[in-house]
Amino acid sequence: MKSYTEYLWFETAKRKELVHITPEIEQIVAGSGIEDGFALVSAMHITAGIIVNDNESGLHADIWEWLEELAPARPGYRHHRTGEDNADAHLKRILVHHQAIIPVTKGRLDLGPWESVFYLEADGMRKKRIVVKVMGE
Amino acid sequence: MKSYTEYLWFETAKRKELVHITPEIEQIVAGSGIEDGFALVSAMHITAGIIVNDNESGLHADIWEWLEELAPARPGYRHHRTGEDNADAHLKRILVHHQAIIPVTKGRLDLGPWESVFYLEADGMRKKRIVVKVMGE
Amino acid sequence: MKSYTEYLWFETAKRKELVHITPEIEQIVAGSGIEDGFALVSAMHITAGIIVNDNESGLHADIWEWLEELAPARPGYRHHRTGEDNADAHLKRILVHHQAIIPVTKGRLDLGPWESVFYLEADGMRKKRIVVKVMGE
Repeated sequence: MKSYTEYLWFETAKRKELVHITPEIEQIVAGSGIEDGFALVSAMHITAGIIVNDNESGLHADIWEWLEELAPARPGYRHHRTGEDNADAHLKRILVHHQAIIPVTKGRLDLGPWESVFYLEADGMRKKRIVVKVMGE
Repeated sequence: MKSYTEYLWFETAKRKELVHITPEIEQIVAGSGIEDGFALVSAMHITAGIIVNDNESGLHADIWEWLEELAPARPGYRHHRTGEDNADAHLKRILVHHQAIIPVTKGRLDLGPWESVFYLEADGMRKKRIVVKVMGE
Repeated sequence: MKSYTEYLWFETAKRKELVHITPEIEQIVAGSGIEDGFALVSAMHITAGIIVNDNESGLHADIWEWLEELAPARPGYRHHRTGEDNADAHLKRILVHHQAIIPVTKGRLDLGPWESVFYLEADGMRKKRIVVKVMGE
């Protein structure tokens, strides 16, 4: 069994952003030398998540509008009494989930034809990190 | 370490359907010869997901009604400008998550007494696929 | 490759409760002797979930209020015709997801500085269980 770990840093220009990271994950898997196994992609900050969905800008706008409806940025959250203003970003992370496992087969990400991996930043413009751990052989 | 991968195809009769797949996953794990490890079950199409919940038809009706409230099928999504009409199915996949890891112990799925595995099809009536990868020894 | 499995039992004092379990998971990983791999933490009852988020009580109150808005406890669910009254707890489990994978690096949980692991009990005051399976070497 082999295991390989890398961390990717992000500092998005906007507070909320979807960043396409399939190429970076593919490259990490290639560098790992692992032919068959699992690649865990997990956001290490509690106001960001990971989704695996379509790389289509219209849908991305729909996703943000939908997240704003279901977990709106607004004053009044009790979390804000700590001085923070990002409770919505914590809820958005829970809603979309903060991680995904990508199966690795024959040394490649075993994704469906339309599956792309995205880092979902819900409180950006500062340095944040994800962990990618590949395990297999 | 051993690894074993199978793909399951679905073509549901209805556009939205919950398909109980615990027996198929159990059979794949038995065929893998793996006694202890993880079984990843992941929907490879971006308008379908996987849930682990109760095999009770009343609850299934509740789940669909609830998904329709939180991620309604309706015109007006920007994704539909591409000619698609299934933006809601993309959002439903994000909401329920597209994958689950089933622990494997003593050669069996290590599920709670009421846990059953379901393929959640949100835009069916066409051939779609999930990947099942078992890793362990 | 090594694998190590433990089950944790909970019986919460309140029907809905967030239980901080990072120390228990850390201890299981230490006991496993696994230095590098994955720790799966999965709720085995279908009315409970796992989240990885902030250990801040104001946010926890926000999370419960939000879950009650998106998946309210109320009469009228079809699932209740079976005699149950907890359909909302099933929906809450789907919403927050029922499991997380914690990467293990150098014998420790490889969590971000603010990531804590919680058992989310949505229908408690009775004995329920999670499985923790660590795999790696």
